Amino acid sequence: MQIEDLKSLLAPVNTKIVLLVMDGLGGLPMEPGGKTELETALTPNMNKLAVEGILGQSCPISAGITPGSGPAHLSLFGIDPVKTEVGRGVLEAFGVGVTVKKGDVAARGNFCTLDANGLISDRRAGRIPTEEALPICEKLKTIKIPGVEIEVKHVKEYRFAVVMRGEGLSPDLEETDPQRTGAAPLSVVAKNAAAQKAADLFNKWITEAHKILKNEPKANGLTLRGFATDPGLPTYKELYNLRAACVAVYPMYRGVAQLVGMDLIKFSGETPSDEFKAVADHWNEYDFFFIHIKKTDSNGEDGNFDGKVKVIEGVDAAIPELIALKPDVLIITGDHSTPAKLKTHSWHPVPYLLWAPASVRPDTEVEFGERACMHGGLGVFPALENMPLALAHALRLNKFGA
Amino acid sequence: MQIEDLKSLLAPVNTKIVLLVMDGLGGLPMEPGGKTELETALTPNMNKLAVEGILGQSCPISAGITPGSGPAHLSLFGIDPVKTEVGRGVLEAFGVGVTVKKGDVAARGNFCTLDANGLISDRRAGRIPTEEALPICEKLKTIKIPGVEIEVKHVKEYRFAVVMRGEGLSPDLEETDPQRTGAAPLSVVAKNAAAQKAADLFNKWITEAHKILKNEPKANGLTLRGFATDPGLPTYKELYNLRAACVAVYPMYRGVAQLVGMDLIKFSGETPSDEFKAVADHWNEYDFFFIHIKKTDSNGEDGNFDGKVKVIEGVDAAIPELIALKPDVLIITGDHSTPAKLKTHSWHPVPYLLWAPASVRPDTEVEFGERACMHGGLGVFPALENMPLALAHALRLNKFGA
Repeated sequence: MQIEDLKSLLAPVNTKIVLLVMDGLGGLPMEPGGKTELETALTPNMNKLAVEGILGQSCPISAGITPGSGPAHLSLFGIDPVKTEVGRGVLEAFGVGVTVKKGDVAARGNFCTLDANGLISDRRAGRIPTEEALPICEKLKTIKIPGVEIEVKHVKEYRFAVVMRGEGLSPDLEETDPQRTGAAPLSVVAKNAAAQKAADLFNKWITEAHKILKNEPKANGLTLRGFATDPGLPTYKELYNLRAACVAVYPMYRGVAQLVGMDLIKFSGETPSDEFKAVADHWNEYDFFFIHIKKTDSNGEDGNFDGKVKVIEGVDAAIPELIALKPDVLIITGDHSTPAKLKTHSWHPVPYLLWAPASVRPDTEVEFGERACMHGGLGVFPALENMPLALAHALRLNKFGA
Repeated sequence: MQIEDLKSLLAPVNTKIVLLVMDGLGGLPMEPGGKTELETALTPNMNKLAVEGILGQSCPISAGITPGSGPAHLSLFGIDPVKTEVGRGVLEAFGVGVTVKKGDVAARGNFCTLDANGLISDRRAGRIPTEEALPICEKLKTIKIPGVEIEVKHVKEYRFAVVMRGEGLSPDLEETDPQRTGAAPLSVVAKNAAAQKAADLFNKWITEAHKILKNEPKANGLTLRGFATDPGLPTYKELYNLRAACVAVYPMYRGVAQLVGMDLIKFSGETPSDEFKAVADHWNEYDFFFIHIKKTDSNGEDGNFDGKVKVIEGVDAAIPELIALKPDVLIITGDHSTPAKLKTHSWHPVPYLLWAPASVRPDTEVEFGERACMHGGLGVFPALENMPLALAHALRLNKFGA
């Protein structure tokens, strides 16, 4: 059954669903015979939910495939990320809080170092630190091109985002990074006639930018990649008739949530408790809350096993605040695995806990961990099934057929 | 995610993968409450790998479907055998070591018995034994048809393979077996105009063959089926950027491996140890080794439970020779099940063991057997996922999306 078919089954009820995503939750033991990060963490509250609920392993894309954060979240939101591509430029822009609307063209920018002949000698400008790159980005913001509005924002180190807004722009543009040193940055080339206007405008902007950069010691050039526009995804309201809200500290995840029509809840602080309080403050306004915890992933990427354990324990300690709201469905999972052992995203399936007092069929597992989830009653299933499972356990889906 | 997408994710690393296929590995208990062949076998080495690795059940085609050896191996190789048909004639020819190239037409031949009116009285020529059929096949080899080269080779009992090579041949031909007694063998009929030339040539060959056979007491007729040519499958190099080699005793499996571009490693002997030594001798030349063990299946087909147990124990005893090579990924599985209790291939999912010290997420299982695999962390999964899993655990796949 296809996801789009859910629309015809939606029931008009007022149950509430909470999706708590600990980014990169899945892990690995550091030593043979050892435990994973989640298995090591003391999680009495999540273990209680595991007793009362059901566990399983969620597969973000398909067997063996390691997802980026964008595709992994789209899967959890019920949108097939293989069929629906969200361009890198759009994710990069949303990641720093720059909105990309349909018809805007966003790109990822890299500063690079050019030699005396204008050839690239370092594709990442010596990985210049953020504090050096920020003032350079400020200078780029001064460029004006008649007929369009341009927004530039620094991302991290040598990376920035640029978004062009105006009439008749198409994102069908070739990237300007020659992907090697010893070659000059390429011009922006239109992939078709409709994109010629955007190509010309981006080339004008690049010419102006190179004038500004020419005396920089390292970042005296730039390349643009991942030209893209808002992919026009269906919204949570359209797909599921849910008033959905996002509580996330990092802009990237707020961006993906916006792409599917979630409202952003503003709040101060960045602890799990701060995030859960933001949910509590808006409890009556929404049917669905997506809560994103970033630091499980950051610690995994850093190879910091103990740090990741501590983040998980911090989330666990705050869980009673969520339970006190009496959600009808609480799902605790990750978007993908980021084992500290591998220091990067991985393909391993993701621990998944579904708690729904009125409707769940509990399995026999008594704690939340990778190996418990391997024995969980939900088995291994595609993350695309997250939303049908959530809606069903919230009693929001009518019967299919007579 | 489609398998063809893996190409864009391939990472240029030098890790090594070994796929050890024990043909027909899956089994059944002979008595209620009993153990299967694999559970009965003493396999201390594979049990150690089970402790360190992860288990699961591989489904060759889909639930309830019993595969032939060709489709079952294609699945393990990552090629959907339902979408990609390899004609029976091609498999039969490769099975006896006859190569079929693009444009050649291969067919399976059956000897049959004709009555005085030329009608089939026995579609399998009384299942004449191999020693009677071999000299008849020798006579058929003498037939010459101008303009084409013809190769005939005996397979087993009443079965043989015939391959025609020449210009402008098409395999779109109807089979000549009327599928019942009391009817005459049919002529070869072209399914379209382009196949008329091949039809005429095969009919000429059949006419000559019947002249030679006419005084045989049992095999005085023949039928041809499964006309096919090389399906032009993508190679391991194209699909996975793997230098792949095959170590197999039986021609059929070397044939399937050749169809996906594997090199054949020549070696003497036919024990597991002989096969593993062949791998060791060529360890530096390849990234991927497919090792095929036939006798698990042969004993299963013969209903020889104890014989199959002994073959498995023989493989286990040689496993340290493989481990000594330090593969990054070792997968031990079967292509399908051949329970001695059923004396034939079956649809039951196949025990699957994945060992990869740097990247595997171990489950809680401590021995390699059907019931341990039912509780394994990989769950039940399509055999088509074997290659994505192998590549991922060898750290040969980049991240999908940002």
